[in-house]
Amino acid sequence: MTYCVGITVNDGLIFASDSRTNAGVDQISAYSKMYRFFGDGERMFTMLTAGNLATSQAVVRQMRRDLDSGAATNLKTLPHLAEVADYIGSISLAAQRKHAGSKEEKFDAGASFIVGGQIAGKPPQIFLIYPEGNHIRATARTSYLQIGELKYGKPILDRIVEPKLDLETAARCAMVSMDSTLRSNITVGPPLELLIYRTDSLLPGEHIVFEEDDEYLRTLRGTWQEGLMKAFEQLPRLPSSAPQHPVRLVDAPGDQ
Amino acid sequence: MTYCVGITVNDGLIFASDSRTNAGVDQISAYSKMYRFFGDGERMFTMLTAGNLATSQAVVRQMRRDLDSGAATNLKTLPHLAEVADYIGSISLAAQRKHAGSKEEKFDAGASFIVGGQIAGKPPQIFLIYPEGNHIRATARTSYLQIGELKYGKPILDRIVEPKLDLETAARCAMVSMDSTLRSNITVGPPLELLIYRTDSLLPGEHIVFEEDDEYLRTLRGTWQEGLMKAFEQLPRLPSSAPQHPVRLVDAPGDQ
Repeated sequence: MTYCVGITVNDGLIFASDSRTNAGVDQISAYSKMYRFFGDGERMFTMLTAGNLATSQAVVRQMRRDLDSGAATNLKTLPHLAEVADYIGSISLAAQRKHAGSKEEKFDAGASFIVGGQIAGKPPQIFLIYPEGNHIRATARTSYLQIGELKYGKPILDRIVEPKLDLETAARCAMVSMDSTLRSNITVGPPLELLIYRTDSLLPGEHIVFEEDDEYLRTLRGTWQEGLMKAFEQLPRLPSSAPQHPVRLVDAPGDQ
Repeated sequence: MTYCVGITVNDGLIFASDSRTNAGVDQISAYSKMYRFFGDGERMFTMLTAGNLATSQAVVRQMRRDLDSGAATNLKTLPHLAEVADYIGSISLAAQRKHAGSKEEKFDAGASFIVGGQIAGKPPQIFLIYPEGNHIRATARTSYLQIGELKYGKPILDRIVEPKLDLETAARCAMVSMDSTLRSNITVGPPLELLIYRTDSLLPGEHIVFEEDDEYLRTLRGTWQEGLMKAFEQLPRLPSSAPQHPVRLVDAPGDQ
């Protein structure tokens, strides 16, 4: 599995991804799932991938070929980020269809993508591209998008993320969300990659790779665990015991 | 959906469940998913249900009929909790098979159960019964079991639950796990039910129902949110910015 998250705040964009891929529990490897494009003062894109690794690699390969060959439609020519999302969706669908109808019925070539960034003169945006090729955009009300093993890391995002967060805080929240996921699911693992993009910079942004034994990551984990324990200890105690009367032989709600 | 959790600690057992059921977003109702049996000094069982409501109601109905008719196998005669789990599993399978082969291919009659409690002279235990009818038991190493929408509420259990927790703390942790799930998933909703059972009491235990506007629940939520925010604010800041060099036109990892 995978866990990737993209956050949009007023100050810019945050991307975070893990690096574990597995095809069964005895075939685990580390692959980067963060692909960075440009940052040349004109446009900057970052793409995160989840799902079938062959499909996501095929998509990246095609994107590069289109760039190299100067195809009519490529990352350099598309005028809007939504069209970049469309473009990625259609390559993804084509890549998946190649392998449809294979023998294995349970085979799933599906892949999901988060793509975000900025094109000069336009606002920074983040899109989520579904395996079906269609996409949705993060907005001020729903200012983060996730792909892969997303549920473990969602509660902290729901509690913290809002458009007025500064970039460092939003990035820290993404790292905590990553850490909760790592802790609860062994198919998500380090190194973790983080990219912080400042609105209108049109630069590649700050790209940080955290290895498993990274000191910051270790401190973050320890401090967060301690803080959570302290928050938990400070919770109000449950209302004091009700008297324990035996219930009816079968005291269950609902009809008989 | 549903979220139910059972926790086993040295001092006893904790059961918690929400009450929302939905068949599509416009057919939402509140049903108790906690069924309590006995507590008569001889045996005490609590069952939590998730999945198809018709199946889980059919299972409870059959359990009651077997008790009322004095069937050879019933909740009163089974000597071990593992056999109670077997019994529930086989009733569940039979109930599901009745409706197999119905027209709707996507129809899922599956239901999961958590059943726990104690029989006089034996240790308290908790089992999870899968839709397939087989079951697993919570142990000292894996001292909680969940059914339904389980991922949102898992991280806090992973961080807090251990066998030496006192009953109140374990119950509080279950409530926080419930709250995280409620917050992130609208198909899980109040009232919340909590049952606290003390080892060897063989009484029904302390049963608390928290309505949506329950004062304790509101205080718990508020305090937890505040505590989390404080813990988050105290996290170490990310390492200071690396210089932003433009990357290659396409600076992406992996092969070409």
